[in-house]
Amino acid sequence: MLMGNGNRGRGILLLLGFLACFEAAFGGEDGAVNLWPMPKSVSHGSRTLSLSKDFKLTTQGSKYPDDSSLLKEAFKRMVDVVQVNHIVDGRVPNSMVLAGLNVAISSADDVLKFGVNESYKLHVPALGSLIYANIEAKTVYGALHALETFSQLCHFNFDKRIVELYAAPWSIFDKPRFPFRGLLIDTSRHYLPLPVIKVVIDSMAYSKLNVLHWHIVDEQSFPLEIPSYPRLWSGSYSYSERYTVADALEIVQYAQRRGINVLAEIDVPGHARSWGVGYPALWPSTECNQPLDVSNEFTFKVIDGILSDFSKIFKFKFVHLGGDEVNTSCWSNTPHVKEWLNKHGMNESEAYKYFVLRAQKIAISHGYEVVNWEETFNNFGRQLNPETVVHNWLGGGVAKKVVAAGLRCIVSNQDKWYLDHLDATWEGFYMNEPLIGITEPEEQKRVLGGEVCMWGEHIDASDIEQTIWPRAAAAAERLWTPLEKLANDPTQVTGRLARFRCLLNQRGIAAAPLAGLGRAVPIEPGSCLKQ
Amino acid sequence: MLMGNGNRGRGILLLLGFLACFEAAFGGEDGAVNLWPMPKSVSHGSRTLSLSKDFKLTTQGSKYPDDSSLLKEAFKRMVDVVQVNHIVDGRVPNSMVLAGLNVAISSADDVLKFGVNESYKLHVPALGSLIYANIEAKTVYGALHALETFSQLCHFNFDKRIVELYAAPWSIFDKPRFPFRGLLIDTSRHYLPLPVIKVVIDSMAYSKLNVLHWHIVDEQSFPLEIPSYPRLWSGSYSYSERYTVADALEIVQYAQRRGINVLAEIDVPGHARSWGVGYPALWPSTECNQPLDVSNEFTFKVIDGILSDFSKIFKFKFVHLGGDEVNTSCWSNTPHVKEWLNKHGMNESEAYKYFVLRAQKIAISHGYEVVNWEETFNNFGRQLNPETVVHNWLGGGVAKKVVAAGLRCIVSNQDKWYLDHLDATWEGFYMNEPLIGITEPEEQKRVLGGEVCMWGEHIDASDIEQTIWPRAAAAAERLWTPLEKLANDPTQVTGRLARFRCLLNQRGIAAAPLAGLGRAVPIEPGSCLKQ
Repeated sequence: MLMGNGNRGRGILLLLGFLACFEAAFGGEDGAVNLWPMPKSVSHGSRTLSLSKDFKLTTQGSKYPDDSSLLKEAFKRMVDVVQVNHIVDGRVPNSMVLAGLNVAISSADDVLKFGVNESYKLHVPALGSLIYANIEAKTVYGALHALETFSQLCHFNFDKRIVELYAAPWSIFDKPRFPFRGLLIDTSRHYLPLPVIKVVIDSMAYSKLNVLHWHIVDEQSFPLEIPSYPRLWSGSYSYSERYTVADALEIVQYAQRRGINVLAEIDVPGHARSWGVGYPALWPSTECNQPLDVSNEFTFKVIDGILSDFSKIFKFKFVHLGGDEVNTSCWSNTPHVKEWLNKHGMNESEAYKYFVLRAQKIAISHGYEVVNWEETFNNFGRQLNPETVVHNWLGGGVAKKVVAAGLRCIVSNQDKWYLDHLDATWEGFYMNEPLIGITEPEEQKRVLGGEVCMWGEHIDASDIEQTIWPRAAAAAERLWTPLEKLANDPTQVTGRLARFRCLLNQRGIAAAPLAGLGRAVPIEPGSCLKQ
Repeated sequence: MLMGNGNRGRGILLLLGFLACFEAAFGGEDGAVNLWPMPKSVSHGSRTLSLSKDFKLTTQGSKYPDDSSLLKEAFKRMVDVVQVNHIVDGRVPNSMVLAGLNVAISSADDVLKFGVNESYKLHVPALGSLIYANIEAKTVYGALHALETFSQLCHFNFDKRIVELYAAPWSIFDKPRFPFRGLLIDTSRHYLPLPVIKVVIDSMAYSKLNVLHWHIVDEQSFPLEIPSYPRLWSGSYSYSERYTVADALEIVQYAQRRGINVLAEIDVPGHARSWGVGYPALWPSTECNQPLDVSNEFTFKVIDGILSDFSKIFKFKFVHLGGDEVNTSCWSNTPHVKEWLNKHGMNESEAYKYFVLRAQKIAISHGYEVVNWEETFNNFGRQLNPETVVHNWLGGGVAKKVVAAGLRCIVSNQDKWYLDHLDATWEGFYMNEPLIGITEPEEQKRVLGGEVCMWGEHIDASDIEQTIWPRAAAAAERLWTPLEKLANDPTQVTGRLARFRCLLNQRGIAAAPLAGLGRAVPIEPGSCLKQ
């Protein structure tokens, strides 16, 4: 009788059990493929494989020597991450075992150049007792993306206590739509400790973003050591809120080993007040201390020193020179600068152009191509170096004008892709199309991609992860996945993005619920999948 | 001339440099010791030591065999954590080198019993070329606390690029004021992935908290596997939002190796609706499904099964049986339960008492001492098992009554120590005195300590860390530090707590600013130390 009562739950249980397996395999009621971002081409079957306890990396047919263990370490991270949320202590059956992954890379080179081939093929067969998955990639960086995709195919089986891969065989071919898929962090408004930046980099790799735009300094603080001008980091907030050159190199290397380039920025001349804490000569005067003193040769010597030091740390092809929001009134209000303007026959606006173009030349002399915020283009676009990449932020429609002028562009229109705008929803992040209104193939190519921006006025180590995620992931799919595979209506991907958000949580990333504004907390008790 | 301009900053620089060194050594303008929580007794000198690159653990004079490498791993974590935020690549000088730490433990036992001796002595001498710091402790758990204290004495020197220890020699004697210093997490309202719980445990160890109260199940979901009743976790939110027994054992072991016990809770009979998803017989009826059916022997069989399984996982002396917020109206409204009440001559209130006391007996039969929320005491305190620990939550003043009645008490008054109350400030957390109004030494001893509670209605992986920290740390000092060393005015410790919050950030913990309500974001750009 008691057990009979107890058994009343059996029907419910069976139903739950069925839904559970279904969910683990495909994650949705519709049997959809739960990968984020969605690959270019995917097909799969319906067989289940068990991951071997001794899951192996092999590299038959690979020309990549992996002298620095970049691939080996990435493989180990992948194996760790598919096991991170549960203890895997079940017995693996004897048949249908996925024994390992063979990675065949055709290039021996692992320099992380801009535009490096990031494509990959991932094939998981479903026959035999000891099966190997196969990754083919032109470069190790394509292979890294394949490993991430592979990890998202793996699930913990709660009955068997092992990791399984459902719906084999899989055939995936994938490559990014845009070569520049960025996220900006801002260490001037608030210092971000190294472990925090590393977690941001980890999470970028999970959604296949590939550029960390490091807005290092701004008017509030100058945290980075510059050996050529060792008093610059006197403009840090405190003794401990600083990065040594070795710290910066560590960030660059950590990112590179995850397929991510670091785009370093100095935002001149308008966002640089902190430079003058160590070198007050850089200020027009102590009373009127921004923008940098255009009249002082020392200003350009310091920029040259910084960019010289940068070139030893930041090996990315691009450097970002800012150039936005320049209020030049200090130049006219400060007698010695005003005198200089008069002497050179410049008004404030011409001096702004002079400054930006001269800074560009310095950067180019150190081997960089230059990114500038869009005000430079809006004010004197045709006089920018023709290799300039214009970084849109103000509103939509700029990219169209930039590429029509023959320049290249990165899209970050603030109404859609500024993460500090908490009223910018993930749906808006998802739907923001960089190529809107640009139809000529040659012009489309000049849109390098886009970037979501995590400005730091209200962001520090306590709230950066949940302000970035999951909204940055919505943009990441826009930047990765072919246009024709993107949803026309974001509600079509809500479930898949929610699942990716839960995956981030399982990996220890503090991604926020989808519902509500940016960084909203859960409104009520419930499943991660429904929030 | 230009360089002369540049040099105008030198005076500012020198001043900054002086402040910087001073800050690194002591952290405040007053030369105060920046340890959190403040040890029982501290004295120090003014010499600086350099940590050896090859910083060694030795165990001369120790009786602790460390067969499980508990101490060795804790030492390695400590060395890692003092280096986590900067690359240490400078040359260590030849003199005044701190070569390592000797740890002498007098007990060979590492069972983490309640009330285990957590005291330690830490002495850092300041003479010689190769100096060893010395830790003496009765148990390995005292030694773990000493390692945490030691880590807080270490600082990165930005000129030398090495780790230094300032203000040696140090003599510290330390022991906790209360043996029970807890933090509650709630995995029923939202599932918390294993990596998230592990980070919570890491951060607890940083502030010397020693009990993780795991409120595992509640009415909303039942995430834990119970082998005796395998359908209970059908009440989980989804297939993946569950913990296996192996996962739970992993949490217990991970915590134990950091000196932290896990207090497991089932909250009966009032917070248990999810149990009936797998076993609907536990509900009075499907329409009226809470509290658990008091009339059904199966209810107590399931409790027995759960506690039997618990006893194999959760080795802490105590188990928590809840007992709060029981709305018994379903019992009178459901015919078969009403009939049972009549047959046994009980009203609802008597049935509530019957349920709680019977559950207590079951727990005791499995070797546990029982913790119950205070409503059990408020309603029928003198009939509780005399070994009961009453867990205060409603308001102040309960502890006094509990200990006067001869029972033991844990303090968690919601107005001060509920972390989900965002209007409860860190100052309130700091000033909440568990022994208020209790003067008799024998009664004071019956206050085992206290616990801050991170209820999960609006908490998941995205916001748990910054809702816990830094407020939990304020309570941690109240529970650790001798009363006479606690500040009478919390503003006296603002700077030291801010520094501890920055330390948490440097270790990758998302502790929120002190200013504002709980989990407030930074209100403006600025130093971590000032927020």
